[in-house]
Amino acid sequence: MNELASLYFDNAATTSIDERVLEEMLPFLKHNFGNPSSVHSHGRDARAALEKARKKISGLLNVSPGEIIFTSGGTEADNMAICGAIATYNIKHIITSPIEHHAVLHVAEQLAKKQNLKLSLLECDNQGRLNMEQLAMLLENEPNSLVSLMHGNNEIGNLNDIKKIAALCEQHSSYFHSDTVQTMGHYPIDLKTLPIHSLSGSAHKFHGPKGVGFIYINKNKKIDPFIFGGGQERSFRGGTENVAGIIALAKALELAYENQTAHAEEILGIKTYFKNQIIKAIPEVTFNGLSGNLDESLYTVLNVSFPPSESNEGMLLFHLDLNGISVSGGSACSSGAQLGSHVLNALGTNPQRENVRFSFSRFNTKAEVDRVVKTLADLYLP
Amino acid sequence: MNELASLYFDNAATTSIDERVLEEMLPFLKHNFGNPSSVHSHGRDARAALEKARKKISGLLNVSPGEIIFTSGGTEADNMAICGAIATYNIKHIITSPIEHHAVLHVAEQLAKKQNLKLSLLECDNQGRLNMEQLAMLLENEPNSLVSLMHGNNEIGNLNDIKKIAALCEQHSSYFHSDTVQTMGHYPIDLKTLPIHSLSGSAHKFHGPKGVGFIYINKNKKIDPFIFGGGQERSFRGGTENVAGIIALAKALELAYENQTAHAEEILGIKTYFKNQIIKAIPEVTFNGLSGNLDESLYTVLNVSFPPSESNEGMLLFHLDLNGISVSGGSACSSGAQLGSHVLNALGTNPQRENVRFSFSRFNTKAEVDRVVKTLADLYLP
Ligand SMILES: Cc1ncc(COP(=O)(O)O)c(C=O)c1O
Ligand SMILES: Cc1ncc(COP(=O)(O)O)c(C=O)c1O
Repeated sequence: MNELASLYFDNAATTSIDERVLEEMLPFLKHNFGNPSSVHSHGRDARAALEKARKKISGLLNVSPGEIIFTSGGTEADNMAICGAIATYNIKHIITSPIEHHAVLHVAEQLAKKQNLKLSLLECDNQGRLNMEQLAMLLENEPNSLVSLMHGNNEIGNLNDIKKIAALCEQHSSYFHSDTVQTMGHYPIDLKTLPIHSLSGSAHKFHGPKGVGFIYINKNKKIDPFIFGGGQERSFRGGTENVAGIIALAKALELAYENQTAHAEEILGIKTYFKNQIIKAIPEVTFNGLSGNLDESLYTVLNVSFPPSESNEGMLLFHLDLNGISVSGGSACSSGAQLGSHVLNALGTNPQRENVRFSFSRFNTKAEVDRVVKTLADLYLP
Repeated sequence: MNELASLYFDNAATTSIDERVLEEMLPFLKHNFGNPSSVHSHGRDARAALEKARKKISGLLNVSPGEIIFTSGGTEADNMAICGAIATYNIKHIITSPIEHHAVLHVAEQLAKKQNLKLSLLECDNQGRLNMEQLAMLLENEPNSLVSLMHGNNEIGNLNDIKKIAALCEQHSSYFHSDTVQTMGHYPIDLKTLPIHSLSGSAHKFHGPKGVGFIYINKNKKIDPFIFGGGQERSFRGGTENVAGIIALAKALELAYENQTAHAEEILGIKTYFKNQIIKAIPEVTFNGLSGNLDESLYTVLNVSFPPSESNEGMLLFHLDLNGISVSGGSACSSGAQLGSHVLNALGTNPQRENVRFSFSRFNTKAEVDRVVKTLADLYLP
């Protein structure tokens, strides 16, 4: 196809594993293979490493180790939070938004249907800003609701004001879960000052492996388990622990926060450069959601709306792929990627234009951006 | 403590990863890091490997690839089967047994409580043999039940006649799930000839990694998802796939079945030798469950009941551990290991005696057995 190295600009879908993370996990795929539930030396070694990982993560988020529960990823964590909160606190009303990830939306819809709960989806404007007055009103009318609103949107990069949402929930005695899968490791999260009840993280979004994540559950707002089994995770989550994955998760989060400010600056630099270059090359581009507003969106995500073009019609992703450039149309966290994005639909995005999400990591370079922009410019040559 | 290499006789709790399995998974922890849901080349590479793994597993079990769904392990698979079957088929009656794994028992108890279902636990005799007449009667009285009975018991090694159970369930239009976590990879399972509706497998029980497993769901008996998210696994199980883990799982199962007969013979040889040697060394030993009956129990498990001894009282595991020997008392699949075994309790095992589960893999040797038996004999010297 082409001789150039492939370029990866889809870091909101998944990231590559940092070499130091792999190094840290390898012993647990080799000689350190004990089951953490076993009381003998093999088991104790695994258990010690597991608890060290938990402590590391809890330290980074400023919570107690007992408030961190390992899961198979962000999706399980979101499902657990929503199912658990509803069951534990006898909640009859779920408030979320049409631009949440399907890991939240689909379980909320399912529960609402099966248990006959009320489901309110907040209005959002054509840039994906949530109607916060509506949230306040809904909570006022119906305290003891469950609010599930994400921190950073995976498609359009919008950052929600979770401090404000948390305060509203507190005021109206409601449960607040936040899907922080896109911000974990990328933004500082200090849970001592943020009255949030649960949040979710997934290792593969910050250079850890896929299939492992965690949920933080505030100790004063415990929720029922989601998976029942052999007493693991202090009986909050059954199942033999993914020890190697958990070690990797903790290391990846540690590395992410060790240099968080530097990474943020560097990646924001890439995004800013990308934005400026693409505007220069194709002046008709616009940006979906708030992703073009550098202060109000994830520094990792730029969702670009390209003008209609006869030669590319519906083929932009394909052409980029042919040129060795991996990017995403809408969300690439789901197999439904080809079906069009529920987020862009909710914003009323013009379907005539082609929407492409570019998402960045600390492994991207400006030289790579140059090549991507050059390729796009060539595709848009009249 | 001691200079001898440590010995691992706790393979029913977890096994070490086969080097060839690690080799196969490593590329997916390095450069092959794509998200299988992404449509670009990085994603397609991951997707192709994922589907190849699924095909491999389905071939080994003689089913269609679409009938295999990857999970985070055996516990999730058991939870999914039981929750899903009940929801999908509007089942009001669960039949299981008091000696099932907690991954089955605890979710069954939970559902029965929350949804007000009837829960029947089959009687078993003091060797853990289930009352099959009772099962037939229960099913006759109440068709459209859910039966969850395991293939091989993780503590006492008892093998259930799942062919017979499947036939009874078929006869009485009931759903049959079998926890096959202890037999998967160790016994041939041909699902073309076994009318079972779902079964569970977990990689770490056959020299794969922890935190990954699968459920087989018969295509004519589909069940609702357990985790909702982004359409992965044809919408049967949300969550970004643990790609590296799944590749490893498939390789581990392939290796297990490639030489299944040879492994079985070899491990049965170890178990038989162990049994004979321990009887010679400490004639007062007996065997719990059916584990002493070589034809009726897992060739991987021998659960030994030691005579009471003043010097070891309650300390046998501890003494073995001090001597570098890792074994389990009761089940070591659960943190409750120290609390005593619900399985041995259900059998009415004499609490005066010390019960130790020795479980074997193809990496154990007769020389290791000699050292264990010698250590035990020394501990029992008057
Ligand atoms: C019979 C049985 N079922 C289920 C499980 C749970 O599987 P996992 O360890 O993958 O959670 C185990 C072992 O832990 C087991 O032995
Ligand atoms: C915002 C958001 N929530 C949840 C998830 C799901 O997490 P996981 O991929 O670990 O299942 C993702 C990504 O897939 C995400 O971007």
